[in-house]
Amino acid sequence: MLRKASTHHFHTPLKLISGKTLPGFSLVYETYGQLNENGDNAILLCHGLTATAHAAGKDDTDSIDGWWHTAIGHNKVLDTERWFIVCIAALGGFGGSTGPASVNPKTGKPYGLSFPVLTISDMVNTMKQLTDVLQIKRYHCVIGGCMGGFQVLDWLARYPDKVGSAVVIGATAKTSAHSLALWEVIRRAIALDPDFHGGDYYDKEPPKAGISLGTMFGMMVWMSREVMEKKFGLALAEGKQKPSYSLEPEFAIQKFLSSIEDSARGPFDANAFIYLTKAMDYFDLERDHATLETAFSQVKGKTLLVSFDSDWRYPQKEVDKIRLALEANHAPVEHHCLHSEFGHGAFLYDFHNGLDRLIENFLQ
Amino acid sequence: MLRKASTHHFHTPLKLISGKTLPGFSLVYETYGQLNENGDNAILLCHGLTATAHAAGKDDTDSIDGWWHTAIGHNKVLDTERWFIVCIAALGGFGGSTGPASVNPKTGKPYGLSFPVLTISDMVNTMKQLTDVLQIKRYHCVIGGCMGGFQVLDWLARYPDKVGSAVVIGATAKTSAHSLALWEVIRRAIALDPDFHGGDYYDKEPPKAGISLGTMFGMMVWMSREVMEKKFGLALAEGKQKPSYSLEPEFAIQKFLSSIEDSARGPFDANAFIYLTKAMDYFDLERDHATLETAFSQVKGKTLLVSFDSDWRYPQKEVDKIRLALEANHAPVEHHCLHSEFGHGAFLYDFHNGLDRLIENFLQ
Repeated sequence: MLRKASTHHFHTPLKLISGKTLPGFSLVYETYGQLNENGDNAILLCHGLTATAHAAGKDDTDSIDGWWHTAIGHNKVLDTERWFIVCIAALGGFGGSTGPASVNPKTGKPYGLSFPVLTISDMVNTMKQLTDVLQIKRYHCVIGGCMGGFQVLDWLARYPDKVGSAVVIGATAKTSAHSLALWEVIRRAIALDPDFHGGDYYDKEPPKAGISLGTMFGMMVWMSREVMEKKFGLALAEGKQKPSYSLEPEFAIQKFLSSIEDSARGPFDANAFIYLTKAMDYFDLERDHATLETAFSQVKGKTLLVSFDSDWRYPQKEVDKIRLALEANHAPVEHHCLHSEFGHGAFLYDFHNGLDRLIENFLQ
Repeated sequence: MLRKASTHHFHTPLKLISGKTLPGFSLVYETYGQLNENGDNAILLCHGLTATAHAAGKDDTDSIDGWWHTAIGHNKVLDTERWFIVCIAALGGFGGSTGPASVNPKTGKPYGLSFPVLTISDMVNTMKQLTDVLQIKRYHCVIGGCMGGFQVLDWLARYPDKVGSAVVIGATAKTSAHSLALWEVIRRAIALDPDFHGGDYYDKEPPKAGISLGTMFGMMVWMSREVMEKKFGLALAEGKQKPSYSLEPEFAIQKFLSSIEDSARGPFDANAFIYLTKAMDYFDLERDHATLETAFSQVKGKTLLVSFDSDWRYPQKEVDKIRLALEANHAPVEHHCLHSEFGHGAFLYDFHNGLDRLIENFLQ
């Protein structure tokens, strides 16, 4: 598999949706496979909240498999002999593109919380600029899940001519009150950590405990209650025959959350988490375009929508509103609700339980 | 309404379920009305997680209405001219009964986290002792919601002869993996607050921010997603005409959570919260009694079970297992699932939407 990891620097100021301006920005991206002569085999992958441009193969630095390694490669669903796959680290995010960890040229210090608030449309605008740099006239398909799904919907609404077809996984056309609440609470967990220092921690110990707590809380919300009962129930933690009546985590589910805490500490920049979730807070195609029908009025290509029956935070019923709006515009669309126990994470952790074939057939 | 607030000191050591011993303990309690000559008009009220013995009337110190003021008084559902109502502050809890804030006689300092871990049965055992002191042979009815519902079920399982009838509101016969997860995460939020000092904060500023964050976690889990969407949706915070693209809470739901944060800071002792939720963690009548049928094998009185359709954490289906186990023992039981938008808090905040009449009819 031909894999390239690159960074492109844009020196022209970027006008943001908020009205503020970034003096310039850089995007980290990876590509897999080769753009063909007609330039019509490009697929754009939009990553989820906690991911980066590193979607497949081993990373040079830490030898970690990409976040959609299971989907990308020779003879895989996204066959790199056939497709030229592009994945761009979101502006403001974890993957090294310009964000709160970047140095503010005016001060010579990291932006921290002085970085301007972003929206999903700002991220998509920067992706569009890189698309032009890569001389991709039009993507054969734009694919994304979670926050990446929001981005695909924004592409459809604002750059429909660039999108030959679209795959939207586990995403709705606007955020929800529940997500607004969740992100707010997680951001406060981060801020409570004494190591947070108001976002100014780049020359110090990062706020690991706050990130861990936020991740634990997110995990318990992402996992549906039903799955939690089925998977853990009231079992005691491994190795315990009877309760110890101590203040330590006593039950399997509590140990599981602790293990997440440990694994979550590595890659997450607390400020990046704040900016990405803020961007998701503002995502509402109805506010941006008056109605969903209007948002999708120029869509011509076909769209595949995928929801999961256990993804109670991005439920089938709300995903289906996208289908109705596209159908109202006579755009070809199909919506499949797959069975999975992995909730919102199913597109990552339960790929070979139906999602693989859906995408394969859709791309044929 | 005749109201008395009292404290009783027990000087005999209390053997706990864990095997540990408390050298003695005190219970704070309130009574409303008068015990009649036959001693058969007593009702025990078991309070929920965040409440105290102060169930009705105005408190002398701060003039706050009791937590079930709406239900208790002359011509109310629990008519104090007819019934003698007893409400006891849970051992280990917020209401002044012995707990982590109490002075350890061995050290002369507050117990803090050296207080022994309690169970629901420990609390009920102390209530039973106070019941004997009050010379109540048998309660006409034992009523409780949330943690209080756990206590009522424990009374039924271990002191069936003391319980003439029972009302269990929004409680299941065991905790859930989901609750185990939630309490663990909230306890960690408290511990993250630098003011927590490992529970040793009684001579310092209490860990308000940790308590606030934990309360926000709890509130967003207690409120069902559906109710949150219906009540708040994506409305901007009051006074905002358009997004400000700042890091402050931007949306109504986020402002609402912040307001909870402010109001939550008052009465909650962080350590008490830790001990009460630990006690709830261990609640599992099946673990204690092999099966639910066995747990309830001596129950003769009638039981009223109430669930709420929006209380997704203590769902109708799981509450109904109590009905099945009681019926298997030929004990009279009825289970009503009421409609409410208040979720788990409905027994407090939506009392006059059906619960009032159910209890009134049941007590006739």
